[in-house]
Order: sequence, then structure tokens, then C-alpha cells
Amino acid sequence: MLKLVNEFQLDESSGDRDSVFERRESRVRSYSRHFPVVFDRASGCEVWDSEGNRYLDFLSSAGALNYGHNHPVLKQALLDYLARDGIDSSLDLHTDAKCSFLETFETLILKPRHLDHVVQFTGPTGTNAIEASLKIARKVTGRTNVIAFTNGFHGMTMGALAATANRYHRQGAGMPLSGITRMPYDGYLGQGIDTTDYLRKVLSDASSGVDLPAAILVETVQGEGGLRAAGREWLQSIERICREIDALLICDDIQSGSGRTGKFFGFEHAGIEPDIVTLSKSISGNGQPMALVLLRREFDQWKPGEHNGTFRGNNHAFVTATAALQNFWTNSRFEQQIKRKAMFLSERLDDLVDSHPDRIIEIRGRGLMQGLCFADPADAELVTQTAFQKGLIAERVGSRDEVVKCMMPLTISDDQLAEGLDILKDSISATARI
Amino acid sequence: MLKLVNEFQLDESSGDRDSVFERRESRVRSYSRHFPVVFDRASGCEVWDSEGNRYLDFLSSAGALNYGHNHPVLKQALLDYLARDGIDSSLDLHTDAKCSFLETFETLILKPRHLDHVVQFTGPTGTNAIEASLKIARKVTGRTNVIAFTNGFHGMTMGALAATANRYHRQGAGMPLSGITRMPYDGYLGQGIDTTDYLRKVLSDASSGVDLPAAILVETVQGEGGLRAAGREWLQSIERICREIDALLICDDIQSGSGRTGKFFGFEHAGIEPDIVTLSKSISGNGQPMALVLLRREFDQWKPGEHNGTFRGNNHAFVTATAALQNFWTNSRFEQQIKRKAMFLSERLDDLVDSHPDRIIEIRGRGLMQGLCFADPADAELVTQTAFQKGLIAERVGSRDEVVKCMMPLTISDDQLAEGLDILKDSISATARI
Amino acid sequence: MLKLVNEFQLDESSGDRDSVFERRESRVRSYSRHFPVVFDRASGCEVWDSEGNRYLDFLSSAGALNYGHNHPVLKQALLDYLARDGIDSSLDLHTDAKCSFLETFETLILKPRHLDHVVQFTGPTGTNAIEASLKIARKVTGRTNVIAFTNGFHGMTMGALAATANRYHRQGAGMPLSGITRMPYDGYLGQGIDTTDYLRKVLSDASSGVDLPAAILVETVQGEGGLRAAGREWLQSIERICREIDALLICDDIQSGSGRTGKFFGFEHAGIEPDIVTLSKSISGNGQPMALVLLRREFDQWKPGEHNGTFRGNNHAFVTATAALQNFWTNSRFEQQIKRKAMFLSERLDDLVDSHPDRIIEIRGRGLMQGLCFADPADAELVTQTAFQKGLIAERVGSRDEVVKCMMPLTISDDQLAEGLDILKDSISATARI
Amino acid sequence: MLKLVNEFQLDESSGDRDSVFERRESRVRSYSRHFPVVFDRASGCEVWDSEGNRYLDFLSSAGALNYGHNHPVLKQALLDYLARDGIDSSLDLHTDAKCSFLETFETLILKPRHLDHVVQFTGPTGTNAIEASLKIARKVTGRTNVIAFTNGFHGMTMGALAATANRYHRQGAGMPLSGITRMPYDGYLGQGIDTTDYLRKVLSDASSGVDLPAAILVETVQGEGGLRAAGREWLQSIERICREIDALLICDDIQSGSGRTGKFFGFEHAGIEPDIVTLSKSISGNGQPMALVLLRREFDQWKPGEHNGTFRGNNHAFVTATAALQNFWTNSRFEQQIKRKAMFLSERLDDLVDSHPDRIIEIRGRGLMQGLCFADPADAELVTQTAFQKGLIAERVGSRDEVVKCMMPLTISDDQLAEGLDILKDSISATARI
Repeated sequence: MLKLVNEFQLDESSGDRDSVFERRESRVRSYSRHFPVVFDRASGCEVWDSEGNRYLDFLSSAGALNYGHNHPVLKQALLDYLARDGIDSSLDLHTDAKCSFLETFETLILKPRHLDHVVQFTGPTGTNAIEASLKIARKVTGRTNVIAFTNGFHGMTMGALAATANRYHRQGAGMPLSGITRMPYDGYLGQGIDTTDYLRKVLSDASSGVDLPAAILVETVQGEGGLRAAGREWLQSIERICREIDALLICDDIQSGSGRTGKFFGFEHAGIEPDIVTLSKSISGNGQPMALVLLRREFDQWKPGEHNGTFRGNNHAFVTATAALQNFWTNSRFEQQIKRKAMFLSERLDDLVDSHPDRIIEIRGRGLMQGLCFADPADAELVTQTAFQKGLIAERVGSRDEVVKCMMPLTISDDQLAEGLDILKDSISATARI
Repeated sequence: MLKLVNEFQLDESSGDRDSVFERRESRVRSYSRHFPVVFDRASGCEVWDSEGNRYLDFLSSAGALNYGHNHPVLKQALLDYLARDGIDSSLDLHTDAKCSFLETFETLILKPRHLDHVVQFTGPTGTNAIEASLKIARKVTGRTNVIAFTNGFHGMTMGALAATANRYHRQGAGMPLSGITRMPYDGYLGQGIDTTDYLRKVLSDASSGVDLPAAILVETVQGEGGLRAAGREWLQSIERICREIDALLICDDIQSGSGRTGKFFGFEHAGIEPDIVTLSKSISGNGQPMALVLLRREFDQWKPGEHNGTFRGNNHAFVTATAALQNFWTNSRFEQQIKRKAMFLSERLDDLVDSHPDRIIEIRGRGLMQGLCFADPADAELVTQTAFQKGLIAERVGSRDEVVKCMMPLTISDDQLAEGLDILKDSISATARI
Repeated sequence: MLKLVNEFQLDESSGDRDSVFERRESRVRSYSRHFPVVFDRASGCEVWDSEGNRYLDFLSSAGALNYGHNHPVLKQALLDYLARDGIDSSLDLHTDAKCSFLETFETLILKPRHLDHVVQFTGPTGTNAIEASLKIARKVTGRTNVIAFTNGFHGMTMGALAATANRYHRQGAGMPLSGITRMPYDGYLGQGIDTTDYLRKVLSDASSGVDLPAAILVETVQGEGGLRAAGREWLQSIERICREIDALLICDDIQSGSGRTGKFFGFEHAGIEPDIVTLSKSISGNGQPMALVLLRREFDQWKPGEHNGTFRGNNHAFVTATAALQNFWTNSRFEQQIKRKAMFLSERLDDLVDSHPDRIIEIRGRGLMQGLCFADPADAELVTQTAFQKGLIAERVGSRDEVVKCMMPLTISDDQLAEGLDILKDSISATARI
Repeated sequence: MLKLVNEFQLDESSGDRDSVFERRESRVRSYSRHFPVVFDRASGCEVWDSEGNRYLDFLSSAGALNYGHNHPVLKQALLDYLARDGIDSSLDLHTDAKCSFLETFETLILKPRHLDHVVQFTGPTGTNAIEASLKIARKVTGRTNVIAFTNGFHGMTMGALAATANRYHRQGAGMPLSGITRMPYDGYLGQGIDTTDYLRKVLSDASSGVDLPAAILVETVQGEGGLRAAGREWLQSIERICREIDALLICDDIQSGSGRTGKFFGFEHAGIEPDIVTLSKSISGNGQPMALVLLRREFDQWKPGEHNGTFRGNNHAFVTATAALQNFWTNSRFEQQIKRKAMFLSERLDDLVDSHPDRIIEIRGRGLMQGLCFADPADAELVTQTAFQKGLIAERVGSRDEVVKCMMPLTISDDQLAEGLDILKDSISATARI
């Protein structure tokens, strides 16, 4: 059905050289090498390419589409806003759309969780939210060091990239990255070793060579880093360390937030309260660029305009974000649905692990952010390529791209979920070496 | 008519304390302190607040709305795209919307200007485009130093912030910024001194203490830095220096591009061809977050995914960007209109300088990116506050916020332009000390 | 007998305010606060203050006087050299004195140990040798990161200070220190945990967030860090990791070298061969400033003068260094003597641990670089203060200055060694809380 | 007479390959490539190689031998000290020798110049004194940036190297150097341009992109940078700027101090009072490694041991330093002699400029730190090579090694001075292209 173009062909073959992508788009693109078609329409969990082929989306724009593509409620809210010439781009000016978002976010998200944090709208990318978090943490504490973890991913701008663990991305910096001390994430030293013991020791030892940090920056589930989920006790230990050394706890909930793990915030499972939370990706609900930083009130020590950015007032995003909160987060039903689907997903993935113990090492992740860790990255690649031919979009993550990630819209129907997992199962079977 | 709330009141007065902005938005907001109303609707050059008051917009979302608010052609394109469930957020996947944008951009912008550059879509903020530019320049040259200029503004993330000159913003970093050598912009050492002489000398002197740079990063007109416009010869000299020392020339056209100075690119006036160009703000046409980097083909040495970001595939922005290019840039009429309006603007600003020689030092800028430099920043502040009361939104820029910036939509009607300048004139007169 | 002046008195009391040290020497001095007398003469292991009081020296100028004060053979060599107007200061010019040193060092030290390394004379401080080592390692590998260890001490200049672990010293930098990744030293994570497992894991994991290093910098025994001695297997594992990742192994033998641990080099015990070795402190033999770097021949990729310094040609030091090598290192007798004394020292220290299990946690170190780790740093301080009153100079090291260090001249007589240890024993007893 | 070995031969020829220098000394050596003999004895201004050839020394160990080699008074002081077993190496302990030095330095140098500064003994290298200066300036001010100048030379360790201008040396760092902003030295922008205007402007412009500095670090005469001497007004302007912005003024008097320019301190000519002064090279008098930092009393905010180093108590150096001060600086006679010799030197160099206007551009420097700037660096090299064959040791400095430096001992006799200058004159004539 589909004519797959591998990476080499994409770059060199004459067949596609005439396309404007080949002629005029930078070589930096990567997803398009794995899914080499032209996408056109999308609705919910379904995507169609320009030739009319249908795909199920287990990628969700890397977590930016938790509510699916073009959700009708969100779309209608945006259409209405456009129709009445609602103000579009507004810097940090006060607007009706921002007012509605803030009131809704306060009422549906912050207050029920007893969070007294204030909201900072940063430039509408996750990396910008991370940069703002690191800045304010350093400013508030007067310290420069920040603790980040093995396999963490926090963005591509220089401040955030210093915290990102991936060597391939780090080398892109073109100069040394500084200001970060790397520590082992939960489980990194193997079972039975609590890596917070090491962290606490170096921070309490005045001659450890690790400077006291302004903050500890952590993902409760590492998305790009390979779907590693931190345990409840480990996260609580991290929180306690922060309190002991007067460092700020920053939870990067950019990928794990907005319901992805089964609760609105990824850190809710652990019963901790971060000083700073970063949100982006799915916060706008329909893929509109938006990012925000939640700051514990006493740490909102910004001077006016100290961190700014043109697009921090994206009212289209405020409108859809408000609609998403109102549609999904007024009661616990959505959380219950996610929980149910996540259990189904776990069961199906467990079956796959059991059926292919030689190829699949383990199931990883939490909520609707789970995946299969393959022994051989090439095997994982072949599986996702095969799945794509069969109509499933699923990506790989991890140090060696060895983890096949299942990150479908949270709104996926039970049938679609089953259909997607069937394709995955078939793809694994089809690629078995005889 | 309007009840102005000054900064102190905004923070402390009981009157507004109940608003959700006071309760829940970070103190970092700044524009909202100067224009303390809640904006609601906007069309073309006009904006209305929630109480129905009308304002003329000489701010244009800091240059992100060159085609005005909710331009009907752009709006319709987006409505159509939404109606047919066009794919929304697509990472760096190939989409129909991106294809159309690239083809249009190639046909209407690149080819007529004989630019063979390729297009990199970065995270949709200007600062992200700058970060990508600095990375690739450092990677391509193997050098780490970058030359940037006095009063330059390039963004708030750590890599870009190092290049930004403003001390207030730099201190927000919370740690030393590195990798940049600062040099005097055109005119910085006074008339008659060509600052490129100094630049050339330190770069050719092996014991100058200035390391050979990967790139020279320059705005052809400095927006935030005070509307300083570099001369044609100066920019050509910068380009020659780049060629002499094998450094890349990066033009930051984020604010000065998309027609703002009278041509699509700000650098076209100088007859130079940068190796790298950054665009953002008005490139999407209606304020949708979008950013791109133009790379001379031989410098497109990225590895796949080496610089990434979730929102680099904002198809809503691609759609409106395409519509904007097709509507305004198929022939030279738009440029001619801008030129005519810019001349009118210059004349009216000249009159103001002549009428208030003791208060206004000079006219600054180029195209529809001009302003008045006041002797006293407090005077400039009073003028813009008064203008706002009279229904004109105009901001201040410069080291001391001493320059009143006139940056109206390029689509402003002649009547609106005259009306806005009348308000400005009246505001200056009204604030004269007797 | 002695009137001890405590720190407060030293700074504030009127009694000593007239001294030129109080009037004119910087507050930065520290040893003089612990041993507040004026020293005058010294010979072998004995030192006399200006009032004629005698002390045994268990400090040896922090390891710079392994052969004791004013050793007659070394002194005579210097007197002869002075008498004949031997050239004194010679930059990196070739001199007879340097020639003799190089030939002697080659013959007595390098060749018998099958080391093909070349010798670089750096500025005559340990920290300068470390700086040179880090530079050449970064140059040779093209990498910037360097692995250093918890509790390591490598000097006070910015490059070396980045590798030094002590927070008190690091804060003196006045700016962030970069270019170093800190890893746990042998034993840091407790018994049974091989910390090289963690090191190997982060270096082999492409998403660990630890950049591949130019070098691993290690002390085989940590002097200032608390007399922690790395095990043979651990050091061999470190060497293997270096080979696996093409990083250079740098042994900082500044304090542990020149016989201090029982062999000329501290790393000889482990059967490893570092790519780079730094020597200073006792290399000149009589406390003359001198430092050198041994470079595996293929890594001697310096360009002429690329690292320089005025005093790298200290011929007085070359003369005494040559005499010291010839007097002590022509056969194994000196090593055997050190070994014997070290065993005696261990036994006596063991007795002290046994006698005061509540106060003394353990014995630390190797060779004549051993000490007692006290539970309470204040206790350790009281013991050394008391010992000084009784005529013994011994210092404290470690994160909290909790380790009393016994670092006597290697040439100490058996009687003096016994005498010194008796004073130490008495001091511990005298300070016991009843 | 002499067989000159050029650099290539030194590295490759079989003739010298057997020497231990070839076998075992690092390729980093540079002076020895220009003066490829083995030096043996030295007295006053005369040096002899191992074959008995005599040379006049116009190099003075790069300024470390202002009082000549083996000055009899200094030598006798050291012999006496050795004879009585004076304590040799003493960390920062109080010693009789240090006491005498401090009292003498206070009486003969500080008090007559009304300097209330305290003395910090750092590790005995100039670069270490610079590192200590930068640290304390950053600590005292809480700022990280430091202003340094084009063509400045301050040492090779990472903190000092950041301030050193030479690109060849900077590249040796192996990683980016940070914390320094480079500014044009006096005369760098040509005659008639006061470069402090630019400096003042960027420091007073809050959007210049130059962060407020902790200190301005300046050599009053740039030694390695090409014998550029700053004018009195320029230095006073620098001092005023420091006062205006609360930055510390650091004078690096390592090469220009100890009488080299005709007064004890190089900055005395300008009538300024630095907050911090660094001294090294000739402070010990006979080439013994020693360095110190003078700190204005209120800036002596070090904590005990915050900057340390094993060899900061080099008592041999204290002894000869004391003898040198007592012998040369009890009255103004020595200064008058230097002045007279400097005038003679200026006249003779002027003659050479006049005689070879096509080859020699100008005379440079001040006091007995003067030289000839050649149009062609290769010409300068040929002249110094020829001079060496004729028995004169003179080195080249400057960005391109284009300046032949005359830096004889200040104690040179009139006859020797004339003899040396005759050789220089002859060498210039002998190398003229016909």
C-alpha cells in the first residue's frame, strides 16, 4: 500500500528530490524520516495523509494532543472566538480570553488541589518554560547549580539543553553546557539502590564537589528519556531533600502533565507539592503553542518584564485551553476513563512482553504513557516501521531509541485502542526472526 | 474616561486585587502595567477593551501583527482549515499546510531575491530561532565566540540572552552569560566613527583578546534597543568582515522582517546576503506563534532532530502565513504602500521634533518602525500614558525606555495613521511643562 | 609554656595587633591561626620558633618536605650551586641544572618504571601542573568535560578549582566553575558498592547527561580530602574505563608522590600507568617551588610556548631535586624504610583507634600519609591544639576537618616518630571528656 | 662561533636528538628554540653557556631578574640563611623571614607611597596572583564580569588566561574562556581617540550588553603585548571609571613593577592608587618564585585559607626579597640610575629608528622596558637571531612577535648597556636587505 522511503532515499533518491521538502526544508527534520508521507487531515485519534490513507495516532504530537486532533468542542470554541474577532496576539496584556483561562484553571485545577501557585505565561514552548523556571530558581536562591537527572529531557535552548541528558542533543550546543549537576534517576543504579541516598550525601558533604543547587529539576515520568517512571517514595525523598537544603523543587510536567498519567499533574501520584511546575504541550488542548510556569507564590520574585517573549499571549490557545479544562476537568470522569484505558494498555503490553521475552525486556511508563523496551533498538525500529505500514503511528524513545512509545490521545475510543494495539501486536509478530 | 492604574496601584491597591490577574498571574507581566485594561476584540489597527473603548494600535503585538488584527483573508483561510479538520500540530512531519507554505515562500520570497537558503522550522518563538542559529553557526565553524552588538535584543533563553544587551534582562539569567563578544553598533561611538574599523582590527589582531567568532549576529534595525537603524555601508562592511574571517553573518529579522522596514527582509536595503536569517513575529501573519531560520544551503549541516521542539509544526500558522504571503507579496504594491506611509510617518515625526526641540532629541528608525527619542524617559512615559488615555497604544523602547515607538500595522489606513499621529501630537503638547 | 592565641584573639586582641602580620598580612592566612608562633629554624623533622621552642613536624609543609627540612645533602648541593654562580631563573631555556635533573629523573625514576613519558616543567605550583594537564587533555581529545571525584583537591586557580571538591574553596571562585563532572570516589557509596560501575554506566549511556570526558583526574590517595586511599581494583577499573572511552588518565600525585605512600609514585601500588602525572610539592626536595607534568609521549601535543610561565625554570629547585633523587632513589632502601615506618605508624594509630573507639572512627590513608578520623571535628581540633602545646605540629584535613593527619618527613628517625606519636597519644588522652 | 639550530632542526635533526632535552622534555618549550644552547653560569648582566661563551642578557628572565643574576648582596643573604638552617617552606605560617620582608616592604615601599594595602602571599607565580585578584574582586563586588584590555597578558591558568589577550595562548585552554570583557587599550583605536570614552559609555549604558564589572584589570605597560605604555591621563580616566561604577582597579605590575619602569610600581607615573596590585617576577630579587597581591585594606575580605597554595611561604624568596629592598630602595638613587639609563636607552633606540625608518616603525615602552617595533616580524626575528650569534640575548614580543624587547637588568653597567646596544645596532645593520 504505502511506499516507504528510508532515510537514505529521503536524502538522496531522485524520486522525492523534487518535493519542496527536499528542496527547501532543512535536513534537521527527523519524524518525517520515520513517517515519510504528507499528512493532511486529522480528527480525534485518526490522521489521514494526502493520498487518503488513514492512520491511528499513538504519537499525539509528542504529547501535545492529549484530547485528540480537532476535538469538536475545542474547535468550536476557537471558531466562535475567530468569528467575533477576539484579540489574537497580546503579549502579556490582560485579555478576556486570558482572564477566562486563569479563572478556569484556578477553579478546576489549582483550587481543588490546594495549590496556591501563580501562573507565569512564558514564550509558548516547553523549553522556554524550563528556562524561566531555572532563571527564577537561581534568582530566588542566589545559587547557580541545578540538579537534573540521567535520561532527563527538558528542551533545546541553551539553559534547558544543559539539563537535557541526551548526548546527541547536547553536542548540538556547539559549546560546553554549564550550570547543571547530573544525578541518577530512580532505578538508575539498579533495583534496591535508592539513588536519593547518593544525592543527599553529596549535598550534605561540604567537600563532595557538588555545589548546593538552586533547584532540583525532575520529570515524574521521563518521556523522551525512555518512559521511566519515578516511584512515589523516591519523589517524596527528592522533595524532602529540597526542603533540607532550601532548594526549589521543579517538576517538568510538560509531557507527563494535562492528564497523561491519569491525573492532571504527573506529580499528583506522589503526593508532593513542587515549588515550580512547567506545563506546555497539551495545555492548550488542540496543539496551539502555549506554555506556563506555576510558581509557589513566595517565589514569584520576577521584576516586570524580566523574562518576556512575543507570543506569551496566544489567545487562540487560551480559548481552547479553557474549553479543554471545562470539558474534561470538571469532575473525575475523565481521570477514571484514563485509568481504565491505562489498565487495558498495561494488560495488552504485558501480553506482548510475555509473548516475546527474548525481544522485549520490559514494559515501561505510567498511565497512557507506556511502552515496550526492546532488547535491540533495530528491532524496535523495524516494529514501528512495520506498524506504520499497517496504519499505526508510534515513535521510539530512550537512549538508543529502544522503547516503542504508546502515547495515544487520552480520548481514544476503546475500539481504536484495541485496533492500535492489534496492529502493534501484528507488527511484532511479523518482524520476528524465524 | 479611563481610570489609569499606575504600577504601584496595580500591585497594591485594593481596587483591582480581586481580579484573577492580581490573584493568579505572575508579577512578571509588564505591558499590562502600562495599558491596564482588559482587551477583548481587535480588527485591523483597532482594538477594543472589555468596556467597549476603542484604541488605535501602534504596538502591533511588538511587531507580530504587521498585517493587523484578524485580517479577513487570513482569518478566512484559518476558518476554512479548521472546517475541514486540517491537521493541527505535526512536529516536523510533512503536511499539506507546510508544503503550501514552503512552496509559496519559495516562489514569492526566496526565488525573487535569489536566495538559495533552506528553511528550518524551530520552536515557534524568536528566541528559539536565535538559539538554533547560534548552534548551527558554532557547529559549522567549530568556534564558540559570537559577535553581537550594543543595544541588541535577541531573546530570553540562555543562549539568546547572552546576545541580548539589556542589563535588566541579562541579570535575570541568574548566572553569567557566555559565548558572546559585544561590539559597538553603527553610530555607537558617534558620528564619523565607523565602528566596523574597530571590529575588523580586533578580529585581525591575533592578540586582541577577541576570539575569532562563529558568527556575527546583527539586527539591521534594532527594535527593542531603541530603533537604531544600521547604515548600508556599515552592514556591507559587516558582511565583508564575515567573509574575511570565515564567520557566518546572521541577520535577526524577527522584528524588522516581514515588510516592517518597507521590504520583506530588513537586510534588503543594504544589498547584503546573510548566511542565516531568523524570522518570527509577523511571519504567521495573524499572531500565531511561528519561527523559522533560513540557512544558506551549505550550512544546513544539522543532523536529524539535532534541534527539535514540539510546536515547530504549527499548521494554523502555516495556513495564515501562506495566505499572508499570497495576499501581500505577489507584487510590489504592498512595499510601495509601506514606503508611502513611512514617508508620511517620517514627515509627521519630523514636525514633532521640530516643534519640541528641547524635549525630543531625534527621530529614529526606518520604514514603519520609527519613533521619537525623548531627552527625558519620564517625559516619554508621560506622553505614552496620555496617548493611551486618548485611545492610542504606543510603547517605549531603548536603554532607558526613552524612545516612543510607532509600530502600527503595515495595513493601517491613511486616516487611521493620521488619527494616531494626531493623538501622539496632542499628547506631546498636553504634557508640555509650562 | 606556649601562649596560644585563638583565632578571635589573633584578629582582635590588642596584644598582637602591633605585629606586622596583623598590620600588613591578609586575613587569608589559615595555618598561622592554628600554630600561632613565629617559626625560625628547621632541620630534618624538627622546627624551632623564634623563642627557641622545639616542635616535631608532622605537617611537612603539606607534603612539600618529604626529605625533611634543610637536608644536609640537598643544602650542600644548593650552596655549591650558589657559590659557582649557577644560573638561577631560566624560563624554559636549556641549563646544566635542568639537564642534570632530566637525566637523573630519567635514569632513576622513569626508566626503572618503564615510563616513556616526557617532562613538562610548568609554573612551579601544583595547581599550575593541574591546569596544564587539563589543557592538554582537552586539546588532545577535543572534549571539554573532565571527570573528578568527591573530596578531591587539585588547587585554587580557576581550572584546577573546578576540579577541587571543597565547597568552601569553590565559593571563593566568585563565579560558577565549569568543565568538570563529579563522580563518587572509591568507597563513597559505602562498602560493597563499586563506584566505577556507576561511572562506567553514565559514560556508556548516551543519554546519561554526562558528556564523554577528555580525562579522568584522580588522586590515588586524597590528601586534603581526608586521607581516603583508593583500592587497587578500583584504580585499575578507572584505567580500563579511560581506555574504553578514549579518555586520558591523569594521576594527581602532587601530595601522594615523591615517596609519600611508600613508592615514588602513588599509583605504583595499583599497577596502572597514567597518561599524565602531576608532581609538585616534594619534587624539589627542600621546599623550593617546582612542578612538572609527565606526559605520555604521544600526548605531548603542545605547540611551543602554548602553556608558559616565568618561574618554570627554577634552577635552585632543579639542583636540590637532582640531589634528592640521587640520595634517596638509587636503590630500594628508602622505600623499605618508608614501608617499615608506615607499618609502625599504622600499628600505633590502630592502638589509638582501639583505645578511643567512641572518639575515633577509623584510621585512614596509606604509607606515611595516614591519620585518624574523629567522630567530632571539634575533638580533632582540640587534640591538634593540645599536641601543638606539647610540641607537635599536626594538621587536620577532610570535609569537616575531622581527620588528624600524620604526614611527617619520610626521613624521620624512629625515635622522633615514636616521640611524635607519644605526644599525639597523650594529647588524645588529655582531651578526653571525663 | 655558535652553531645556531633553528626550530625545525631542533625538532628533527639527528644532531641534537640524543640530548635529554630532546628525549625527555616536552615540546612546549619555546625560549630554548630561540637560544639553542645550554646555559650554565650567570652574574649580573652576563650569562655563560656550557661551552664558556658569554652573553649579555637583555631578557632578564622575562623581567624576573631586575637586579641581575646572582647579585652578591642577595646571594650572601641566602647563603647566610641556608647556613643557619633558616626555615625553608612554611605555607602561610609566620616566620622570621616573612616578618622581615613584611616590615621592610612596609617601611621602604608601602609607607613612603602612603599605601595602606595589606599583603597576600599567593602561590609563587604571577598567574596565581592574578587568579587571587580576580577572585577577591568578584567576591567583594558580587559581580562576575572583569574588564581586561587588548594585547594584555596576565597568565596561563584558566582564570588569568581568560584575561590574557593572545589568541595562541587562549586556544590552549581547550574550552571557552569566560568572565572577561575585552576593551581597547590606550592608543588601540589610533591617536586622538580616548578609548576610555568607549569604556565609560558601555558601562553607563544599561543596554550596552557589557555587564558591570567587578574590576578593571590593567598593565600600565604591556610587557608581552608589545611594550605599549598607557598614558597618565588614560590611566587616571580608568581609575575614575572604577570609582564611578564601584569596580576595583587592579594593576598587574608583575612585569612592570619592582623598578622596571623607573619607579617601584609601574602605576606611580600616573598618580593613581589601585585597589589591588599584583607583583611577582622580580619581587624576590634573584629569580626565586614569589608572588604577592596588595589589597586595599577594606577589600581584604578573604576567609581563612579561602585561597591557598603550598609554596606561598617560600622563605628563600623572602630573604632575598628583603635584601633587595634594603639594598636598592632605601633612597631614590636607584630610581635615578634607572632614569638615566632609560634616557640613554631611548636615545640609542631613537637613533636606530631614525637610521632604519623603513624597517623600524617606532620605539615602544617606558623605563628599562623599551623596544623597537619592526614592520616585518621576520625581520625582528632575524635581528634577534643575529644578535644572539653576536652574544646578546634579546627576545621579541607583540601580537606577531614584531617588537624586539630590551629588558636588561636594571643594575646593568653603562659599559654593558652600550655594548649590548652596539650589538643590537650591528645586528640590525648586518641584516639589512641590500
